[in-house]
Amino acid sequence: MTLVPKIDGERLLGRLDAFARIGSTPAGGVNRQAFSVEDRAARRLLAELALGRGFQVFQDGMANLFIRRWGLDAAQPPLLIGSHLDSQPTGGRFDGALGTLSAFEALEALEDARAQTLMSIEVVAWSNEEGSRFAPGVMGSMAFTGADISAWNSIIGSDGAPLSEEIEATIAALPEAKLRPIGMPISGYIELHIEQGPSLEKERTSIGVVTAVQGTRWLEVSIQGSAGHAGTTGLAYRRDPMVAAVAAMHSLQATIMPHDTSARLTVGRIAAKPGSINAIPQTVTFTVDLRHPRPERLDAMEAELRRVCAAEAKAQNCMATISLSFDMPGAAFSPEMIETIEEAARRLDLRHKQMISGAFHDALFLARVAPAAMIFVPCRDGLSHNESEFVEPADAICGARVLLEATVMLARSRLKTNL
Amino acid sequence: MTLVPKIDGERLLGRLDAFARIGSTPAGGVNRQAFSVEDRAARRLLAELALGRGFQVFQDGMANLFIRRWGLDAAQPPLLIGSHLDSQPTGGRFDGALGTLSAFEALEALEDARAQTLMSIEVVAWSNEEGSRFAPGVMGSMAFTGADISAWNSIIGSDGAPLSEEIEATIAALPEAKLRPIGMPISGYIELHIEQGPSLEKERTSIGVVTAVQGTRWLEVSIQGSAGHAGTTGLAYRRDPMVAAVAAMHSLQATIMPHDTSARLTVGRIAAKPGSINAIPQTVTFTVDLRHPRPERLDAMEAELRRVCAAEAKAQNCMATISLSFDMPGAAFSPEMIETIEEAARRLDLRHKQMISGAFHDALFLARVAPAAMIFVPCRDGLSHNESEFVEPADAICGARVLLEATVMLARSRLKTNL
Repeated sequence: MTLVPKIDGERLLGRLDAFARIGSTPAGGVNRQAFSVEDRAARRLLAELALGRGFQVFQDGMANLFIRRWGLDAAQPPLLIGSHLDSQPTGGRFDGALGTLSAFEALEALEDARAQTLMSIEVVAWSNEEGSRFAPGVMGSMAFTGADISAWNSIIGSDGAPLSEEIEATIAALPEAKLRPIGMPISGYIELHIEQGPSLEKERTSIGVVTAVQGTRWLEVSIQGSAGHAGTTGLAYRRDPMVAAVAAMHSLQATIMPHDTSARLTVGRIAAKPGSINAIPQTVTFTVDLRHPRPERLDAMEAELRRVCAAEAKAQNCMATISLSFDMPGAAFSPEMIETIEEAARRLDLRHKQMISGAFHDALFLARVAPAAMIFVPCRDGLSHNESEFVEPADAICGARVLLEATVMLARSRLKTNL
Repeated sequence: MTLVPKIDGERLLGRLDAFARIGSTPAGGVNRQAFSVEDRAARRLLAELALGRGFQVFQDGMANLFIRRWGLDAAQPPLLIGSHLDSQPTGGRFDGALGTLSAFEALEALEDARAQTLMSIEVVAWSNEEGSRFAPGVMGSMAFTGADISAWNSIIGSDGAPLSEEIEATIAALPEAKLRPIGMPISGYIELHIEQGPSLEKERTSIGVVTAVQGTRWLEVSIQGSAGHAGTTGLAYRRDPMVAAVAAMHSLQATIMPHDTSARLTVGRIAAKPGSINAIPQTVTFTVDLRHPRPERLDAMEAELRRVCAAEAKAQNCMATISLSFDMPGAAFSPEMIETIEEAARRLDLRHKQMISGAFHDALFLARVAPAAMIFVPCRDGLSHNESEFVEPADAICGARVLLEATVMLARSRLKTNL
C-alpha cells in the first residue's frame, strides 16, 4: 500500500493560529518585527516542532532558519521552500507566516507519508523580510544570495537597537539550531505567499502562478517656480510649479499605465511650498513609484518621466530636478518552475492564473541564483501590511496543497511502500 | 499770482524713510503690526505732523485715524484719501505707508499753496489692514463701512493680546486726536498703493488705474479613494484619488485662466494621505484660490470646479468633497472716479493703464458706500509682503502727483490768489 503525501488542513490552520498568538495585537494582527523577542519566540516554536519530527535545524549568521529533511541523493543541492516569520509593526497573521508554515506542513506531510525524495528539502524562514525595524528589508535572502553585507554592521533599528547585536542575540537564543555559513548551492526555491492585492479574490481564482517580480524605482521630482501672490500675478507673469507638476503627472498617468497592463505608476506623496492658500508655490515636490517586470520598459518609463517633467517645467518657465532614490531590479521566474506550479494546480483541479508580483519578496533574490517561483493565494480585499489581513481557510489549504504537489514533483519523490 | 499745489518729492521720500524706521527690521523691512507699540508710534508721528500744519486730527472707535483740512463748503461730505500704516510681521516699507504718506503730502501741498477746496479733504490711515496680528484684515474700513463688529470683541491676537484692549490702548495713546463715531458720509475715496504684482514694472508703466478689485473664493477639495499597494494593485482595481485630483486640476488649469485674462486660479496647498512613496493615497486634499472681478464669472468658475472635481473623482471611483472656506466679493470702482484718475495721469503726461487689483484693499469696502478708486505704482519684481519690497523714488513721486491732481479735480479746488 502506498501513502500519498497529503496536507493536513486542520494542522496547518492550527499552526497559523498558534503563530498568530506570538506578538498578537488587540486588533487581530501581529507585531513580530525582525529579531525582536516575538520573532525569536516564533523561530523557537518552529525549531521545536521541527526537532520533534526528527528534522535537522540550522541557522546562518543572518539568523536565517533552515529545517532539513534528507533526500536519498545527498550530493544534490536541496530544494528550498519557505518564506519569513517577521511582520510589520501592525502586520497581519498571514504575510510570511502562511508561506513558512505551509512549507513546514509540506515537510510534515512527506514525513507522515514516509515519502522519500531524491533531493533533500529545506524549509526556510528568511530573516527581516519586512525591513520596518531594520531597513532595508529582505536582508536574509539578500545575504544568502551573495549581497555585500559589510555595511549592515552599522545599522541601527527604529527602536535604537544595533542590528549586529540583535542578530547575535537572536542566533544565541536558539542554540539547538546548528550554525552554518551564509549561502549554499540550492536546486530551486518555491515561496507561497498571499497576493497582497485584489485580483485573485475579485476573479475568484485560488492560485496565482507568479511569473515575475516587478522591478521598482522610486523617483522624487521637484519643480522650482517662483512664489507669487495668487491674485496680483497675471497669467503672463506666472512661473507656477503646480501647473507644471500637474501637467506632468497628468501626462504620465494618462499614458503609462493604461497602455501597459504590467506597468504601475503611483504618486503617493506631494507637497507645495510655502503651502499658502493664496500664494503661487515656490516649489512642488512629488514622488513617483514606477514598477515593471521588464527592465527595458522600466528604463523607458523613467526616461518618459524625465522627459515629460522637464518639458512641462520648461513650459511654465520652471525647472525640474529629478532624483532616483531607490532602484530594485525585478526578476523573471524560471519557465520550468512556472510550468511545474501550473501543472500542480492542474492536477489538483484548482482555478489558477499567471500573474506578476507587484511587491518585493525573498524569491526576487533567490531567482538570481537558482530556478525560483512563487505561488499566490487570495487575501480579503487585497489587504496586507494591515492587522485586518485575512485569508480564507480553504484558500490557505489550497495554496499549501499546490506547494506540496510542486515540491514532490521537483524533488522527484519516490514513494516508499508502507511496511 | 497763483500757486499751483505741488508734491514735494524730497519731503515725501524723507517721510517714507522716517516711517520706515518705526518698526524697522534688520533686513530692511518693517514689523509694524496693527495696534502694536510700533503702530502707535507711527500714528503719533503722523498726528504730530498734522497738528503742526494746523490740520484737525480725529480717531474713531476702531482707531482709524483721520486728518482733516477744511473745504469752503462745510456741508459737503469730505473726500477721503489714504491707506494704512500697519504692516505684515516681515513687511515692506511701502505697503500702506506709501498711500498714507502720499495722501498727507497732497494735503500739505494744498496747504503750501494755500489752495482752497470746496470739499473738505481727509487723510485716513485705516486700522489693521493686514490682519496678521488680528484676523481678519481690513478691519478699519470694514467697520467704517458698516460691518457688524460685535463678534470682534472676542478676537485674540497671534501674541495672545485681546483685540478690544489693544484698540482701547491705541486710542488712549493718542489723546490729541478727537474721538468720533465709527463711519460717516463721504464724497469719495482714493487710495494710492503699490501694485504688489509685476505687470506695471514689466510694462514700464508708471500708473495703474484700478478699475475693480477681484472677488476671491477659497475652496478646499478633498478626494477620497482607497489606499492600496503601489505594486500589487493593478489599474482595474485602483481607486486612486491622486489620479482624480490631477485630472481635475489639469482640466481647470488648462481652461479657466488661459481663456479669461481677468481670472485667477491658484493651487497653493496639496497633501496626500497617508503619504507613502509606495502606496496609493487614501485621500488627496488641495486648495483652490479663485479670483475674478465679476461675481457671475466667479460663480461660473466655482461651478466648473465643482463639476470637474466630481466628474474626475467619479471616473476613478472616488468621491470628492468640496467646501468653500472664504468668500470675499469683489468691487467695481466708480467710472467717474476712474475717469478722473486717468485724466490726472494724462495731464501729468504719465504712462498709465487700466488694471484690476488681485489683492484686497480697504478701497474694496469703501467702494460699497461711495465712489472709490485706486492708483497703483510699480514695485520691484512685484514683491510685496516681503522685507525686500521696493519702489523707485520716481515712481513713488509720480503716484503722489496723480493722487494730488485727482484730489484737486474732485474737491473742485478753487485756487486762492496769493496775498
